[in-house]
Amino acid sequence: MTIAGERTLPTREEIFAAHGGGKLATALTAPLVDARDLAVAYTPGVAEVSRAIAAEPGLAARYTWANRLVAVVSDGTAVLGLGDIGPRASLPVMEGKSALFKAFADLDSIPLVLDTTDVEEIVETLVRLRPSFGAVNLEDVSAPRCFELERRLVEALDCPVMHDDQHGTAIVLLAALRGACAVQDRDPAGLRVVISGAGAAGVACARMLLAAGIGDVVVLDSRGVLDHGRGGEKAALAAVTNPRGVAGGVAEALDGADVFVGLSSAVLPEELLARMAPEAIVFALSNPDPEVHPDVARRHAAIVATGRSDFPNQINNVLAFPGVFRGALDAGARRITEPMKLAAADAIFSVARDDLTAESIVPSPFDPRVAPAVSAAVAAAAETPDRAV
Amino acid sequence: MTIAGERTLPTREEIFAAHGGGKLATALTAPLVDARDLAVAYTPGVAEVSRAIAAEPGLAARYTWANRLVAVVSDGTAVLGLGDIGPRASLPVMEGKSALFKAFADLDSIPLVLDTTDVEEIVETLVRLRPSFGAVNLEDVSAPRCFELERRLVEALDCPVMHDDQHGTAIVLLAALRGACAVQDRDPAGLRVVISGAGAAGVACARMLLAAGIGDVVVLDSRGVLDHGRGGEKAALAAVTNPRGVAGGVAEALDGADVFVGLSSAVLPEELLARMAPEAIVFALSNPDPEVHPDVARRHAAIVATGRSDFPNQINNVLAFPGVFRGALDAGARRITEPMKLAAADAIFSVARDDLTAESIVPSPFDPRVAPAVSAAVAAAAETPDRAV
Repeated sequence: MTIAGERTLPTREEIFAAHGGGKLATALTAPLVDARDLAVAYTPGVAEVSRAIAAEPGLAARYTWANRLVAVVSDGTAVLGLGDIGPRASLPVMEGKSALFKAFADLDSIPLVLDTTDVEEIVETLVRLRPSFGAVNLEDVSAPRCFELERRLVEALDCPVMHDDQHGTAIVLLAALRGACAVQDRDPAGLRVVISGAGAAGVACARMLLAAGIGDVVVLDSRGVLDHGRGGEKAALAAVTNPRGVAGGVAEALDGADVFVGLSSAVLPEELLARMAPEAIVFALSNPDPEVHPDVARRHAAIVATGRSDFPNQINNVLAFPGVFRGALDAGARRITEPMKLAAADAIFSVARDDLTAESIVPSPFDPRVAPAVSAAVAAAAETPDRAV
Repeated sequence: MTIAGERTLPTREEIFAAHGGGKLATALTAPLVDARDLAVAYTPGVAEVSRAIAAEPGLAARYTWANRLVAVVSDGTAVLGLGDIGPRASLPVMEGKSALFKAFADLDSIPLVLDTTDVEEIVETLVRLRPSFGAVNLEDVSAPRCFELERRLVEALDCPVMHDDQHGTAIVLLAALRGACAVQDRDPAGLRVVISGAGAAGVACARMLLAAGIGDVVVLDSRGVLDHGRGGEKAALAAVTNPRGVAGGVAEALDGADVFVGLSSAVLPEELLARMAPEAIVFALSNPDPEVHPDVARRHAAIVATGRSDFPNQINNVLAFPGVFRGALDAGARRITEPMKLAAADAIFSVARDDLTAESIVPSPFDPRVAPAVSAAVAAAAETPDRAV
């Protein structure tokens, strides 16, 4: 399914032209035009700086770019909605991500795409490269490997690590849900939420909603509502979700539900939407093709959001990840904790609150207040005792 | 020994101020300011580009930055004259190198410093990262590990790999020697050359001079003139150098020598310089401290060069490596071959030829003709049958 947006989509020619030669470049922070510049930036001047860092390793944070450099790391196994297309084909996405870090949070960022899908080897590679960067944004790694990989990297690296497909999505989802509830003047805690998809984003979103006090969350994978018969992350999630014991598939789960969150690419038929409660909220977040066309969803739902920039209410990770990493690096945090993620969602919602409508439950990604607000909130939350956990 | 140059050296304060926050940054190749830009550069537009590369991997060269991206790789074991100071302390040097790639050849470049000194692990790491870059500039890796590491990387990676401390130095040395001979109107082939130092640069310089037809090369390490009793690279070098069978140390080697090439940091006493032949050429190339002060050397030599930007005749790798990598990448070369290196030396000498004097045997690093001339010559040489070797 390819859908035409309300605004004009870029043409194929326009897209390929814009990607020619790549979207990222390196640049100098100071001119290098004469012998004196060379003597300062390179030999003999640079030897002074290297000597100083050798004597006091902490100075590397002050005199190199590493401390503000985010490595965008992928093995290309779960790229957008395209699946396992490999590291080379994932590179345009990672370059785009690095470009967004620069544009939205003034953080330097480089894509590192890996020609291995072995968790052990990816961890080993990044541990060896550790002095080269200041944080790791994991991207487009397939589930369930992504859970183990993130856990292992958090243990192995003394710097912020976040799998954005999990936590960036979850942060923005929570902010959007708060925005929708504010428009409808209802309490998020009372919502019945159905999450279709138990991959990276589905699992993280369910856990974030639980952490935010939303008690009735039902999660489905392709086999239906998660139950204790599943393995790994899904079994763990089954144990803390579905308090009413719903059995079956999407149809049963949507009966009387207030919120549908689509994170699975599985097409949602219109007749199932009709089963939802009045004033329903539909977040059809798969990219590039939402689970249901927004025009169709609007026939049954009061508030509709997608992940796309060409429809209203774009639930896009770019609202979160630039500020989250900027805040974590500004604070010198070694980890990105649950309070930091909740603080990020709060900050996004706070910016949206001034202009809330059913078609504006989250700020525009280009609202210049978002990244600084998220960054400040995350840095402040990094100061909590949880920081050392 | 710390020496004061003829020109004013930058102060310590000036140097540290210039290195604050690092010398490198990332940048966007196109603005990212509205929803349409986001739809082109990121989702949904980027999916088209990723799909295309997945179908035809060669397109990655056209639609990502990787094909023009040089990874500057070091383990920090032989940094400038500072020795094994580790990856973190080496990073300011690698950042500087990346900055030079940008300033001199408009190539993007990222430093990758590795927290391992194991050759096997470094090779493994770069093989895994292979889709992320287009070429590898090995830097400041200690001898003799650097020889094996470079050999292994050339075998393992299908892209240009060059240890600049070896070959960049050798290329510029050969160009400078041609320049000095042109000033003195003599034939390089007849020179007696003494190379003090059998590390990375010493070995590569000796081999390059031999390749260029200079037959009388004597190489010394800290134990004296290389002989067959040494191991590894040194034994191999002993077998093809020292045709007159000189025995002993620097004093014996310098008796009647035409050229001294210092690549060892070992101080050269003035009385030994006096043993050289008339019209001697002295290249004291250790950084940051030359083996002999240029003012002292000039009492005994007709032409003096150092590696420093604050003296005349700077034999600086920056004359070679930007153009060498640019030419190799422009040509789509998989390796950097001997003919490509000789072509680079020719090109540097060609630029110098117009303005040769005893104080100007090489072009200024800021001569804008150098990098394009080197790049064009290297790309042309890459087309020879040797390219596939």
